[in-house]
Amino acid sequence: MDASGADRAPSTALLTDHYELTMLQAALRSGAAQRRSVFEVFTRRLPEGRRYGVVGGTGRVLDAIESFRFDTARLDWLSDHDVVDDATLAWLAAYRFRGDVSGYPEGEVYFPGSPILTVEGSFAEAVVLETVVLSILNHDSAIAAAASRMTAAADGRPCIEMGARRTHELSAAAAARAAYVAGFGSTSDLEAGFRYGIPTGGTSAHAFTLLHDSERDAFTAQVASMGRGTTLLVDTYDLAEAVRTAVDVAGPSLGAVRIDSGDLLMLAHRVRRQLDELGAKETRILVTSDLDEYAIAALASAPVDVYGVGTSLVTGSGHPTCAMVYKLVARASSADRDAVLVPVAKRSAGAKSSRGGRKWAARRLDADGVAEAEVVGTGPVPHDLTGRLVQVPLIRTGEVVGREPLSAARDRHTAARAQLPLSATQLSRGEPVLPTEVVSRSGHAGA
Amino acid sequence: MDASGADRAPSTALLTDHYELTMLQAALRSGAAQRRSVFEVFTRRLPEGRRYGVVGGTGRVLDAIESFRFDTARLDWLSDHDVVDDATLAWLAAYRFRGDVSGYPEGEVYFPGSPILTVEGSFAEAVVLETVVLSILNHDSAIAAAASRMTAAADGRPCIEMGARRTHELSAAAAARAAYVAGFGSTSDLEAGFRYGIPTGGTSAHAFTLLHDSERDAFTAQVASMGRGTTLLVDTYDLAEAVRTAVDVAGPSLGAVRIDSGDLLMLAHRVRRQLDELGAKETRILVTSDLDEYAIAALASAPVDVYGVGTSLVTGSGHPTCAMVYKLVARASSADRDAVLVPVAKRSAGAKSSRGGRKWAARRLDADGVAEAEVVGTGPVPHDLTGRLVQVPLIRTGEVVGREPLSAARDRHTAARAQLPLSATQLSRGEPVLPTEVVSRSGHAGA
Repeated sequence: MDASGADRAPSTALLTDHYELTMLQAALRSGAAQRRSVFEVFTRRLPEGRRYGVVGGTGRVLDAIESFRFDTARLDWLSDHDVVDDATLAWLAAYRFRGDVSGYPEGEVYFPGSPILTVEGSFAEAVVLETVVLSILNHDSAIAAAASRMTAAADGRPCIEMGARRTHELSAAAAARAAYVAGFGSTSDLEAGFRYGIPTGGTSAHAFTLLHDSERDAFTAQVASMGRGTTLLVDTYDLAEAVRTAVDVAGPSLGAVRIDSGDLLMLAHRVRRQLDELGAKETRILVTSDLDEYAIAALASAPVDVYGVGTSLVTGSGHPTCAMVYKLVARASSADRDAVLVPVAKRSAGAKSSRGGRKWAARRLDADGVAEAEVVGTGPVPHDLTGRLVQVPLIRTGEVVGREPLSAARDRHTAARAQLPLSATQLSRGEPVLPTEVVSRSGHAGA
Repeated sequence: MDASGADRAPSTALLTDHYELTMLQAALRSGAAQRRSVFEVFTRRLPEGRRYGVVGGTGRVLDAIESFRFDTARLDWLSDHDVVDDATLAWLAAYRFRGDVSGYPEGEVYFPGSPILTVEGSFAEAVVLETVVLSILNHDSAIAAAASRMTAAADGRPCIEMGARRTHELSAAAAARAAYVAGFGSTSDLEAGFRYGIPTGGTSAHAFTLLHDSERDAFTAQVASMGRGTTLLVDTYDLAEAVRTAVDVAGPSLGAVRIDSGDLLMLAHRVRRQLDELGAKETRILVTSDLDEYAIAALASAPVDVYGVGTSLVTGSGHPTCAMVYKLVARASSADRDAVLVPVAKRSAGAKSSRGGRKWAARRLDADGVAEAEVVGTGPVPHDLTGRLVQVPLIRTGEVVGREPLSAARDRHTAARAQLPLSATQLSRGEPVLPTEVVSRSGHAGA
């Protein structure tokens, strides 16, 4: 992207923690800023009870790195607020990322210790990307993981994302995108359609019925405008009466009815029976109302055709963020171009220690083609795993090479989930469905 | 804002659910679109165990309504994707909100049933704002409520918002803003400083220490660049050794040390003792590492000077969204200008019913000036409550009249929280600290 790209996408340069820039300033001054460095995004654990993670947001990360440019307004603000000194401002003014990024492609599954993203460049150019990279991956992957559990529970029935009103207005679009990657079929959020090309759809709200003098007037108005294929909301007053009116107004070819309250299991059966009796055998039943993966699973035996999911999806179904971190795992011993990379890791007491060195990752399959282990190593890749490496190149010397249509990520998620052991999609709490094996330089594996 | 305002702020017009626009289309066709309507934002409940809610995002709502304009790119997209018909597109092209908005001012506390925002205009112009209004209020109020519990627990010690990396990159800025309203002193997020004028600050990361050949080199580089007032991160290797090195490098006037792992209660005592012995009696101790309001409270007796809070804050400390809804509560009986407003409400079985009519709200105080009830009514305001009304005008015939500096919301929150019964800031789970009393038209109160 050239400098005029600032007109096309807003700058992401200040989606950054203050300390990234002050560390940069200090490192520019100490000379260490030019040391070649490898940062790794990984997580030490999955959310409690979850069996796999889902990578969401990779495509957005690539866009954000391309748009990570400091324009005059931002440089002036940094200067006016004394965030960094003039030498650092000059460096930032010329900034564009010229390093390499590899990572798990979007839609892939991941486990504790998986090297989800590897960013390599000078310390200076890589450290400043920490916050925006983590914001995107932690948010989008949390939504994708929840969405994947929901689409697995829905077992082929379509799921619609409807949570925009329950989350930040732009998180909403990112959430719809992540849900689509993990198998949702459409979204209510127009911004997600506009930005990401996701199919949008909708029904109507109680307000529309209440606006009119009667439910019949409202249904008549909706059918006149949207056609018989529309979805009528039938729980504003009396459900049975509304279903009768709906079929009376729209005829037996009415597209669908929506139930948004009450005991959905019982009501779906009752409404199905009534629709069938009225001859509306093809009219579908869409249910909404605080659904999550457990409620979806509980409706498996009910005559439900479509699930609309809101709050629980956009808040990650109890886990609104992931615990991904962005850690320096190796850096050159000097600023020389040829300096050797030295593995580094925090080693104080406590749970936050990490493993140094640039990692590769492979997914080992058993004889039946079912995944049996996530293998992560720092040395040479064992021969039997060279064909099973998970990371792909995303950016090479600053140029994005890993962009793909969202449908590719969606297809990849379907395939990756299908390759996991069957217990992956059990909703009960459990351990990660694959163990992470660590292979050291000498080639020995450990847990 | 005139049409050129699109250059200043991005359009918010598609931060909207698909069905708002199809309802609009159907209502334009049925003629009901022009009926004067009153929509109300309220919540049926607080998150479980919470004792009060905090209104966050009002200022952002006003900006979003001003920027709710359909530009050519968005109209073309709606047309290309057959979201609505040409008549509706023409209506949207001319859209700007010309109605009235009143509401609880930002930073105010709220309770179940509080009319947090009241939007009045034609059905058409008010219905389309539902999603963006709820997105902002549900997100920002969730963060503000969590932040308020944390600043109450910190009891005067400064709190820094550091959660940008744990939430969507733009939610992060909104979260920092909401936290500031609820008493946080600063944020690590530069975007929040740039957009909202919130003070920013930071320390340094383990990567900075690991980048250098020794901890001493790293500390020396940081002090050379940032001065002795900086905050040194002392838990990369050995804590006691790091504190010794820190004071050795920076001298006893070192600004602060940060501890980011381990048993913070024990370590804070140990580090304080060591700093005092080294003569660094003014050096402050900043603690971070998965703090929430409970961890902050548990450190009350520890020699901690500053709390840095991340994940728990930006995810609402267990409650990442509020349950606010945007409901039609009254509408005219016809499209005539003088038509009478009729209260309306969903009345099917189940928990989702609501109360019709345009509401006022007042906070009744006891003889000592302590709040004792949230009084919500639809009829005339009782004389003793006319001076205690909570809503303020925010928009009048489309013009924003309620804009204020963020500091005003921050001051208001401090005052509103202080006026609640003391049990409001207990961290244990409990009922809302004020009962909501409903006053009917006849003047009788009920629970």
